[in-house]
This record gives sequence, C-alpha cells and structure tokens, in this order.
Amino acid sequence: MPTEVIGLRRAAEWPHPADFTPPPTAAQRERWLEADRVARPERRRLLRETMAAHGVDGYFGVRWEHMRYLGGLPFDEREVAGSGDSGKFLVTMDESIILADSRYTILVEREAPDSRIFECYNALADRWADLMAESGLRRVAIEAMTIPHLTWERLAAAAPNVELVPIDGWVEDQRQHKEAAELERVAAASAVADRALASLLPSIRPGVTERDLALDLEWRMRTGGANQLAFEVTVLAGAEAALPHGQPGLRPVTTGQVLLFDFGAEVEGYRSDMTRTLMVGEPTRHNADVYSVVHRSQEVVFDALYEAVPKAQRGEPLPAGRAMDGLARQAIEVDGRFPVYGHGLGHGIGIATHELPGLGRRSPDVPLPRRTVFSVEPGIYIEGDTGVRIEDLVVIDVDAGRFERVTNFPRDLVIVGE
Amino acid sequence: MPTEVIGLRRAAEWPHPADFTPPPTAAQRERWLEADRVARPERRRLLRETMAAHGVDGYFGVRWEHMRYLGGLPFDEREVAGSGDSGKFLVTMDESIILADSRYTILVEREAPDSRIFECYNALADRWADLMAESGLRRVAIEAMTIPHLTWERLAAAAPNVELVPIDGWVEDQRQHKEAAELERVAAASAVADRALASLLPSIRPGVTERDLALDLEWRMRTGGANQLAFEVTVLAGAEAALPHGQPGLRPVTTGQVLLFDFGAEVEGYRSDMTRTLMVGEPTRHNADVYSVVHRSQEVVFDALYEAVPKAQRGEPLPAGRAMDGLARQAIEVDGRFPVYGHGLGHGIGIATHELPGLGRRSPDVPLPRRTVFSVEPGIYIEGDTGVRIEDLVVIDVDAGRFERVTNFPRDLVIVGE
Repeated sequence: MPTEVIGLRRAAEWPHPADFTPPPTAAQRERWLEADRVARPERRRLLRETMAAHGVDGYFGVRWEHMRYLGGLPFDEREVAGSGDSGKFLVTMDESIILADSRYTILVEREAPDSRIFECYNALADRWADLMAESGLRRVAIEAMTIPHLTWERLAAAAPNVELVPIDGWVEDQRQHKEAAELERVAAASAVADRALASLLPSIRPGVTERDLALDLEWRMRTGGANQLAFEVTVLAGAEAALPHGQPGLRPVTTGQVLLFDFGAEVEGYRSDMTRTLMVGEPTRHNADVYSVVHRSQEVVFDALYEAVPKAQRGEPLPAGRAMDGLARQAIEVDGRFPVYGHGLGHGIGIATHELPGLGRRSPDVPLPRRTVFSVEPGIYIEGDTGVRIEDLVVIDVDAGRFERVTNFPRDLVIVGE
Repeated sequence: MPTEVIGLRRAAEWPHPADFTPPPTAAQRERWLEADRVARPERRRLLRETMAAHGVDGYFGVRWEHMRYLGGLPFDEREVAGSGDSGKFLVTMDESIILADSRYTILVEREAPDSRIFECYNALADRWADLMAESGLRRVAIEAMTIPHLTWERLAAAAPNVELVPIDGWVEDQRQHKEAAELERVAAASAVADRALASLLPSIRPGVTERDLALDLEWRMRTGGANQLAFEVTVLAGAEAALPHGQPGLRPVTTGQVLLFDFGAEVEGYRSDMTRTLMVGEPTRHNADVYSVVHRSQEVVFDALYEAVPKAQRGEPLPAGRAMDGLARQAIEVDGRFPVYGHGLGHGIGIATHELPGLGRRSPDVPLPRRTVFSVEPGIYIEGDTGVRIEDLVVIDVDAGRFERVTNFPRDLVIVGE
C-alpha cells in the first residue's frame, strides 16, 4: 500500500492562533451557565423516569461529574479528594438534596439553589438513617461502581429497612447525549487548545525540554480562555512518544524526532482533548511512514462517520464505537508494517475527560448516540523508537445532519524547530 | 480579653522571596527519588508485618497514594481518572505486582522496576481468578473504603475460594510516620509556596481579580520549583473569604477588605498547604480583631506542641490531634466575639494533601505520631462579612527534639495594595 500523501507544513504554512475561534466572552459564558440551570430540572426528570422504571424512590449519587450535571455544584477530581461527604447527593421523586459540611454550605446555596442542603460532616453512615427517614425512602439506587464497599455495608446496616439497589451507568448513559450548550463548550475548549498549540509553534526549538513546553502550553491555555486544564499536559519527545501515558520530563527536543502533545482545556465545566505529533526538523522516512498510517487510520473512521450521519437521518442506526475502533485497527493491520495501538480508539468527553460512548474493542456493541462528542485517536507505538498519535474530537448530531471535527488544528505533518 | 498585639507589615517590611529556601537542585531531587527507591522495600516489609498479624497472605491496593508510596508509580488524582485498572497492585509475602494495560507497561517497568507487571485492561474481574491462582493466595486484604462495592462483589464471585478481607487505614497509618526525605520534600514544597506569595505581594492592587491573582500565584509556584500544584489555588476577597472552600472568581480586590490565599506546591511527590489572609489597605478594626483571634488560636496550639516535644522525649505520649483542635476552638470561644470554624484544625500532608494524622473534633483520641507533619489552620468565618484563616505546616520529630513550622511566611498582619 502506498504511503498516503499528507500535506507538509513548514513555518510559512503553520496554523496561526487567529485561524481558530477566539475565547468565549463573559456574556457567552453566562449564557452557558444559564443553559445548565435551565436544563437541570429536565436532566433530573429523565433520571426519575429511570428510577421509576426500576422501582426505586431514591437515587444516591457519589460522583462529582453527576453532581455537577444534575445539581450544579462545580466539583472536580481535585476538590473531591478533600471534600469528605460534601457533594454527595440524593434525588428523590420530588427533591434534590445535597450533602454538605460547613465548608460548603454557602457554595451549595449559591451554585445549587434548587437543591436542599443536608448537613453532614464525614459522618454519612451516622446520618444515613435520618436522611432516609426524613425523605421517607424505601428503595434507593446507589452508584455501585463508585461507592466504597465499606460505605455500602455501613449504609445497609444503618437503615436496614431501606433496600439499597446497586446500579451503574444510569447517569453516564444520560450524559453521553449532549445538549447544544454542552457541545458548544467542548468546541470552545477545543478552540482554546487549538489556539494554544498554534501560538506555541515558534517556541519549539531543539534543546527545549518536554517540561518547558508542557508548562508553556499550559500557560497559553490558562491565559487564553480556559477555566482550567482538562488534564495535565503531555509532551513527549522521540522514543518517549511510545508511552501513551508518559509524563513530560527534562528530555530535550531533538532534530529528526517526533514531538507528541496530548492536552486539553476546560471551559465552563466542559473539556477538550487533542493530540498532535509534530516533526522536529525534516522528518525521517520512518517517522513520516508511521505518521501516514496513523493519519489514514483516523481518516477511515472520519469517512465512515461522515457517511453514517445521512443514513441515520433516514432511519438507520449509527455504527457502534466498537466497529469504528475495528476500522481504525484494520487500517494499521492492512498496512502491516507497524503495531496497532493497545488502547481504545476513543472516548466520549464532556464534564469528564473520559466518558461514554466508548470506542474500543470491548465497548458495548451498540450504536453511537445521535447527538454526542468523542475522540478519535489511533496511534502507533514502537518501544525505544518512536510513537505517533493523532487525536481529534468529533461531534455527531444526526437531527442537524451534522458530523464535524471540533479540533481544527491541521492534521498535516507539521514541521517545527527548523 | 485584650486584642493580641501582632506585628504589622507594610511594603517596607514585607517578606522577600530570598528570605526563603531556594528551590531544590536537580541533584537534591535525584537524592529524594533515590531515598524513595531505598525506602520502598522497608515500607512493604512493614505492610507485610501488618498482613501477617491479620492472617492475610495478600494486600490488594487501589489507592494511587499507596501505589506511589509502596510501588513507585507516580500517579495522582487526575491520572487515575483515566487509567482504568492500571496502577492497582497486589503485595504478597514475597512479591509486588502492579496491574497495567499497554498504555502503562513501559512506565511501570521504568518507575517500579522491583515490581512485576500483571497485564489487565479494564477487566479486573475477568483476570482476578488468574491473579489469585498464579499468586497462590487464600486471604486477601482489600482497601474497603476505596474499592467500589460492585467491584468487590465481582471479585468475590470471580474467585470464590479466595477470602476477601475488608480493611481500611493500614497504609494510611504507615504513611503518617514520615521518613526524613519525605519531611524534606514537604518543607521544600512549603518554601516554594512561601517564595511564590512573597514574590506576588507587589502585584496585589485594588481592582485585580481573585482569578488573576490565583493564576499569577500558580505560575510563580510552577516556575519556582514546583513539579505541580498540590491543589487549585484559592484566592478569596472580602466576604468571599467566609467560604472555606470557595473558588476564585472575577471579583476584584477592594481596599479595606481581607484577601485570603490557600495554596500549595508539590515537589517530587510531596505537597505543601498554607493559608494567609492579607489586608488590602489599612485594616478595619473588625478585620484586625478577627485576625488577632485566629492568630492566637493558632499560637496556643504551637505553644502546646512546643512544650509537648521535650516531654515526649522523656517518655510521655504526645497530645492527640483532637486535643489540639479543642485548644484552638477554646481560644476563639473564650474570646467570645466570633464564631468558631466548622472544619477541623488540621490534617497530615505528604503524598496526598489530606492524610493522617487528623486534628478535628471527631479525630481518634490517640497521640500524634512522633515524626510527622500536619497543618494547623484555625479560621473564623462570618457569612456575608469577612473570613480569616491562617494555616501553617508544622513538623514534629520527637527523637530529634524538633518542633518547627515549615511554613515560614510571616504570620503578622501583612498590608498590601496601599
């Protein structure tokens, strides 16, 4: 199979920050937050439909993403590390109740005004019977893939007349179907990341370290419209790029090697995620070959999705994420020269960096949602040698007849450090 | 009770970055990492003593802090959000085994060379029987306050002949007893934070927003020796400071108000945590009074600890963290003018921002460890009005006859923005 012809971009053809959507205005940000406030009652209504269908009268939530989605409290991975029981929450058929200790009560009143506060300071098991009694609950669904085993046992003992129903995935399933204001924020976060990398290109020179570049890129996102990072920036030079989750080190950028950036921004609670593998100086034939195979592997998925959307408008189901992963793998296997990536092809994204739908070998064989956003990120990793990954976020909106990349940084071979 | 006399520091008396220990050198960093490598077998040996005492032949770890401490894989809150089962680990009487999928295998080989890799890609329950069989285990202790309930149920079903023993706190208990190289890093991280705030003081002017200052302070830590932040920087102006866990917003700094900074750095895996409440312009009498009561509340704890260490050298137990919390509360209650903080007085710190020992009303009534580091952070929060918290990290090392603050930024009333 011939090597795919891919555009080459040297300094004169580099993308410029002004090529991408500018950071959102304060007014736009406020509109998104207002859209969330308006959407939350409907989100809870949908959850209550699921609750009713399963015969439970309460849902006890223990994941910060679900809290943010259903209740509005802006927690994240880091906040929950020290928040104790605050931010856990109970949805009944007619109420939303948020647990909070004194550190958080004012925040809850402000950010989640349509929820009631139940005061609780690291004493969930002690307060559980009261919570159940005052809510009059009999059968409560609990996130069993998150709640610790010992907590489960203690809650079961604290109110033995309340049946605990282990559940998983209810809210994850809801969250993969994105509202317009959610998709807009993922796109805005993608544009922040696109702009940051474009603005960084002139600073990439042989001798600069991975860590220098990671910090520089982070700073450009943080001062370029991101509320915060989606996750720590990954910058990996040369053979290090063969580690799909390596960490930036003191290794310098070297001519003739690849330079992989995996990074994302967060804008008003929604995240982006993108990977670009640049070439430092004239690419070796080997690196260019690897790049072209990864590029093709991604391209076949884009083509398939592009064709699937009009068919879905005519009533056919969308393909499964698992099938897309298979297509991407096949493209690398058919070429035959390089090993296929060991991770999945992609993942949904939104409030969390990784959410549904899954696009992997073990993902459920179900159609992709009709309005969603996910990553397409094939890679080739050759230990001790080189690594290439290209990752774009794509949006599908069948009813709008829409399939598009929201990562707009070019997928061409970008040459830096010349 | 008279208002305590506290030093006032205007611009001429401000601390200067050069007052604090400079960032660690690369050689120092390498010595710390080497100290960890040397210490890990002993850490695992101690864990095995606990295992033997409880009659288990395996310990299954699911917390990233414990993984880092016992095995060496440098995960944190953010990495585990997307790492699946990678980083979970098994300590048997003669082996250390780390679960990893293809994204992490090279990283594990490099960072945890004395552990064996067990390949596992989000299929823990499917692989559990194999893991148990090849290790020949019969009774396995599992972190029951972390492992999800549903995972527990699946593991129990996957290898019904292996008894799962719910445990909690074994490694937390070990980790509160700090090694010298751990204490050094907490102190180094504290110095990074001290320097960052000292260097920020001239930039604080009325009209600057909380968010501007948070980003600026973060940048000073990140470029001033921190590997990363310990947690997101909190900057709260005026009445916002009454939210012990508020988030920096677009609120501007205003003359006559307080300005609270809560922040920390991470240096080679160890964290710091400090809070300073500055005064913007001439402090009001009210704010100065609140400050002086918080200052005294912290001071009585320092005094008590200072006296306790020589007694402990002579064989008396150290006081309990709960008793220290009581002393600090009492100082505020005796004054009688302001409400007592609702959180705990302090917490241990190290690999995680919050760890043992606890210094709160509900902390176990046991003596503080003889070599440890923790925060002392009383506060007064008056909703809609003002808030003051002062937080220092202190080290106790009884055998060395040592009690000292490792937060060296002055506790005086610092006046900025004049």
